[in-house]
Amino acid sequence: MTHQDELKQLAGEAAVQFIEDGMVVGLGTGSTMKFMVNALGERVKKEHLSIVGVPTSERTKEQAHSLGIQTKAINEIDHIDLTIDGADQIDPDYQGIKGGGGAQLWEKIVAINSTKNIWIVDETKMADELGSFPLPLEVIPYGSNLLFSRLKKKGYHPVFRMNGDKYFLTDSDNYIIDLHLGHIKHPHELALELDQMTGIIEHGLFLDLVNTIIVGHKDGPEIIKAR
Amino acid sequence: MTHQDELKQLAGEAAVQFIEDGMVVGLGTGSTMKFMVNALGERVKKEHLSIVGVPTSERTKEQAHSLGIQTKAINEIDHIDLTIDGADQIDPDYQGIKGGGGAQLWEKIVAINSTKNIWIVDETKMADELGSFPLPLEVIPYGSNLLFSRLKKKGYHPVFRMNGDKYFLTDSDNYIIDLHLGHIKHPHELALELDQMTGIIEHGLFLDLVNTIIVGHKDGPEIIKAR
Repeated sequence: MTHQDELKQLAGEAAVQFIEDGMVVGLGTGSTMKFMVNALGERVKKEHLSIVGVPTSERTKEQAHSLGIQTKAINEIDHIDLTIDGADQIDPDYQGIKGGGGAQLWEKIVAINSTKNIWIVDETKMADELGSFPLPLEVIPYGSNLLFSRLKKKGYHPVFRMNGDKYFLTDSDNYIIDLHLGHIKHPHELALELDQMTGIIEHGLFLDLVNTIIVGHKDGPEIIKAR
Repeated sequence: MTHQDELKQLAGEAAVQFIEDGMVVGLGTGSTMKFMVNALGERVKKEHLSIVGVPTSERTKEQAHSLGIQTKAINEIDHIDLTIDGADQIDPDYQGIKGGGGAQLWEKIVAINSTKNIWIVDETKMADELGSFPLPLEVIPYGSNLLFSRLKKKGYHPVFRMNGDKYFLTDSDNYIIDLHLGHIKHPHELALELDQMTGIIEHGLFLDLVNTIIVGHKDGPEIIKAR
C-alpha cells in the first residue's frame, strides 16, 4: 500500500466512526470512498450493525454488495441520516467542487437529502480558492454542442470529457463538460448562473452542504467542523 | 376534419409563411405542430425550398422525414433561424407554459438557440394568468421520490405523469412531474426557484422567449407581435 493510500485508509476509518447502528448512510464514489466503504464493511461485520447504504454510483453499489453491506435504491428510502463522500477541492469557506469521477449528479441528489454530510479528502484538496480543479457539468446530450459554444463564448474554457474516442457517459447517460476556469472568485454567483442555463443538469459546485471534513495528513486525520 | 382541426390547419399555414428559403427551422411537437409540419412539407415540395428542420422529438422527426423535409440533429447545426412550436398556456405578458406533450426539455433547448420563436395556439390557450394548466418538470429518475416529497411540502401539488402503470419516459429517458398550481402569480420567481432545485432538469416555464404568436380564431388566424 502506498503512503497516500495509507492516509486515505486512516481517514476512511475515522469517517466510519460517525456511523451509528440503524442509520441510512449515503455512500460516495471515488478512490478515497473505496477505503471508507471497506472500513464500513469491516465495522458492519464485526459489530453486526444494521446499516442501509444508499450508493451514489453503480461502482459503489457493487463494492458495498461484495462486502455484505445492505443497500437500497434512493427511491426506496424516505431520508438519509448521513452521507460520506470525497471532494475534489475545498476552499476556506468549506465550499467544494466535486465530480472528478463523473458522479456529481447522483452525489448531489444524495447530499441535499442528507441530514449530515461528511467529506474525506487528503490535504492537497484544501485550497485558497476554487477553480484550479476543473468544474464538471453534467449536460443533456441533445444540444450539447450549442451549449458548449455558449460556454466558450463566456470564456469558461469548456472541454467535453471523453472516454477514449467516445463521449464519457454518466450513470444517467449524460455527457460531462469540464470548465477550466482557473479561479472561481464568486462560487454562489457562478452556481446561480449555471443553474439557470438550459441543458445543464447539474454542476459540481457543492455549496453550504458539508458539515464535517476529515483531512488526511501525514500525522493522521484532522477533523474539521465546517457548519 | 373537425372545426378545431381546421383552425389548427389555418394557423399552421399562416406560420409557415414566416419560413424563408435556406433557413434552419426548429420544429416543435404536438397536435398543432402536425398541421404546421404538413403545411411546411407542402411548401417545400411546391416551392422546392431548401430547408433544414431541427426536430424537438422523435415523433416530429419521423413526420418530417415522411414528408420529405430534410432534418439535422441539433448537434450537427451551429444556429437555428426560426422555431415554430405550440404552447399550452400564454399569459398577457406573452409568458408561456409548455410540456403537455412531454417534450419541453428538447423544445426549450431548441427555443433558446433560435433567433426567432413563433408559437401557434388556439384561442383557448390565451389566459389571464398561468397555472390552471399543470406545469411540467422533467426530472432525473434517481431520487425523484425525495424530490416529489420536497415539492409536496412546498404545496406545489406534484403528480408523476404515468403511461399506464409505468412512469412516462421523455425522449431523454427522464420522468415528468406535473405541478398542479392553479395560479402562478410570479412566473420569473418560480422559474428561478425551480432552476436551483437539484434533480429538476428543466421546467415548462418559457419566459421572454416568444417573438410572434399565431392564434387560431373562428374567423381566421390572428398574428401577435410579442417582442
